[in-house]
Amino acid sequence: MTTTREECAALDAADPLAPFRAEFVLPEGLIYLDGNSLGVLPARTPERVRQVVEQEWGQQLIRSWNEAGWFAKPHTLGARVAPLLGAAAGQVVVCDTTSVNLFKVLAAALGLRPGRSTVLAERAAFPTDLYIAEGVSALAGGGARTELLDSADQLADRLGPDTAVVLLSLVDYRTGELLDLPAITRQVQAAGALMVWDVCHAVGALPIELDANGVDFAVGCTYKYLNSGPGSPAFLYVAERHLAAAEQPLSGWFGHAKPFDFEPGYRPVDGIGRFLTSSPSLLGQAALESSLEIWEQVDLAEVRAKSLALTELFIELVDPLAKYGVEVVTPRERARRGSQVALRHPDGYPVVQALIARGVVGDFRAPDLMRFGFTPLYLSYTEVWDAARQLAEVLESEEWREEQFGRRGEVT
Amino acid sequence: MTTTREECAALDAADPLAPFRAEFVLPEGLIYLDGNSLGVLPARTPERVRQVVEQEWGQQLIRSWNEAGWFAKPHTLGARVAPLLGAAAGQVVVCDTTSVNLFKVLAAALGLRPGRSTVLAERAAFPTDLYIAEGVSALAGGGARTELLDSADQLADRLGPDTAVVLLSLVDYRTGELLDLPAITRQVQAAGALMVWDVCHAVGALPIELDANGVDFAVGCTYKYLNSGPGSPAFLYVAERHLAAAEQPLSGWFGHAKPFDFEPGYRPVDGIGRFLTSSPSLLGQAALESSLEIWEQVDLAEVRAKSLALTELFIELVDPLAKYGVEVVTPRERARRGSQVALRHPDGYPVVQALIARGVVGDFRAPDLMRFGFTPLYLSYTEVWDAARQLAEVLESEEWREEQFGRRGEVT
Repeated sequence: MTTTREECAALDAADPLAPFRAEFVLPEGLIYLDGNSLGVLPARTPERVRQVVEQEWGQQLIRSWNEAGWFAKPHTLGARVAPLLGAAAGQVVVCDTTSVNLFKVLAAALGLRPGRSTVLAERAAFPTDLYIAEGVSALAGGGARTELLDSADQLADRLGPDTAVVLLSLVDYRTGELLDLPAITRQVQAAGALMVWDVCHAVGALPIELDANGVDFAVGCTYKYLNSGPGSPAFLYVAERHLAAAEQPLSGWFGHAKPFDFEPGYRPVDGIGRFLTSSPSLLGQAALESSLEIWEQVDLAEVRAKSLALTELFIELVDPLAKYGVEVVTPRERARRGSQVALRHPDGYPVVQALIARGVVGDFRAPDLMRFGFTPLYLSYTEVWDAARQLAEVLESEEWREEQFGRRGEVT
Repeated sequence: MTTTREECAALDAADPLAPFRAEFVLPEGLIYLDGNSLGVLPARTPERVRQVVEQEWGQQLIRSWNEAGWFAKPHTLGARVAPLLGAAAGQVVVCDTTSVNLFKVLAAALGLRPGRSTVLAERAAFPTDLYIAEGVSALAGGGARTELLDSADQLADRLGPDTAVVLLSLVDYRTGELLDLPAITRQVQAAGALMVWDVCHAVGALPIELDANGVDFAVGCTYKYLNSGPGSPAFLYVAERHLAAAEQPLSGWFGHAKPFDFEPGYRPVDGIGRFLTSSPSLLGQAALESSLEIWEQVDLAEVRAKSLALTELFIELVDPLAKYGVEVVTPRERARRGSQVALRHPDGYPVVQALIARGVVGDFRAPDLMRFGFTPLYLSYTEVWDAARQLAEVLESEEWREEQFGRRGEVT
């Protein structure tokens, strides 16, 4: 190992983001490298959730729809998520799940490109994105279809007059590869198609510039880098220029122009509100509200700088593990790397289990990827050093061969 | 007034459901007749939510997906809601919102009736149901359409070889009218169509017998009579006989046969799981979990008996208010009444506001309906008497004419 633990301690001492660590609950004895799956609990969140449960619900009851701003939450929270996406106000709402939001956005995008019927996506995308694309394609009038690419590099060959929409993940959930959002968006739009970005593995990990790059649509979740808890509500972004014409089929009353006129016919409200469907999940929103208070104090450029430093450090420290069959899958070029490092190992599953037994939490993705997520707000350089050291010990000792770690199974 | 307050006190003393009142947080000085909109907080819920936030999320983190049963929750909670619907296991899941679930169910139903393209619904249905029916109809291949009936009585005339689906609310959200589920279901199915019931205003208010009556599909929410909090997850029911062939377009990875094989193509899992889409809202589910602990101790026949007694008492007590222009809209026949009473008054809005100022919470639905919900688990006969008395005083005194109550506005 090149960088020493002492050097890591020095980096921690100089880290401008170090004070944020105190904002989070970090279980004793754990090095948590899975914040790319489920972010840790902010220390302030239990109190905010308690307040919504006991005060807003328990005491104020239905008055809270107006007095506690419940009706407006999808918008007010959307406006607070928007800066993390490089989005001006009025283009983001917080609601439903990423999959449900993707359904709305894809249906809307297909509707904006009549006469075109192909959705292009990467075969290695997070599968639910592909399943939803399949679902919306099958249902959309005119027989849309989803076509899978081996990689975004094939866009140049496959984009054509039939391409309605391109759906890509900004950061790959397995390899951690970061795509070139500005260039791909331009390329897709030059072919007359619309660009939908899934930013689940990017939001809160790096600055995203949707407006500046003229992105059409985006969706993402809040329970990874944004620390809003399991199943917290997702968000969607629609560029302002599409809002007048965009229509989505999950046309519930929250998207109606006059929801309290109780008209029998649907009339979408002007603006981003037409992408809402129904009652928001107030408890999940409370957790998001609370974690956004932290995010509003954060400089995303500092997050990105530390993220790159942490992943670079980890790669440097695990590179020598090639002798145990470990291969770094994540791109080494900074511009192509998100905030996680994926390592390939034929026995990745038991290796991850053995690491977890030592208190270092990463996860495994079939068939052979070990994923390690790096969350700059609550992870130290020293922890990264310790995690790499533990991984080296697991491999040196071959303790992963013990029967308790040996089953290949389903893991998150 | 015929029944005296003393007689109400005697009814309370003999009420077998009276002990349940202690299970709920009832704000001081409030008579809450809006449990049909948002049920009150169960006393045990804050602790359960705290546990999920601080322990399952905060300490166990991603391990909770397996160890705390997070993955299985849509099913385990569905199995616990099922008895409230008269449904055997394996036909109910808890997920998403009522609107989103209705979209899935309507799309599935249309898919099961190829060659038929009409969805029949009541013009006075809760509008979001109609909007969603519109949305799914517009998107469904083959050009389905939604046709609105003035009332379910028109079914006899309108059911025909083109009717694919009939969508009705078991209890009307405004009038509180209870439809004849067994007869209508038979009538619809005799015409070769499928029956979808929205049971939002019925579940937890009266026994529902979906299996016994061969209902095809149902959807409903958990934040009204089931006391699971604002925006708590909804549920859907699909009769077992449809599960093999039913397909729904919100085909996310939670509905996949092998979600952790990360296949690029969608293959729905066998059974009700195919109606799931994506990550459940764990905080909302925690609240449902907690309130179901109460519901599992409840005899729905006792709930129904008390519900009818409470609504009957209220109707008896407000009948003399006809002299102030109050008209009882809710059916007086027991078999046609849910658990709320709607009163028509040309100045319903300020009257409701004046009542709220006196601590009696009902709500208003345009243009002229005052709604009062009766929740047998936490409402006493004496409270109903007091509420009727307060309403009489508001009308006698004409205090609702005061400027502070006078604006017609948007209310929940």
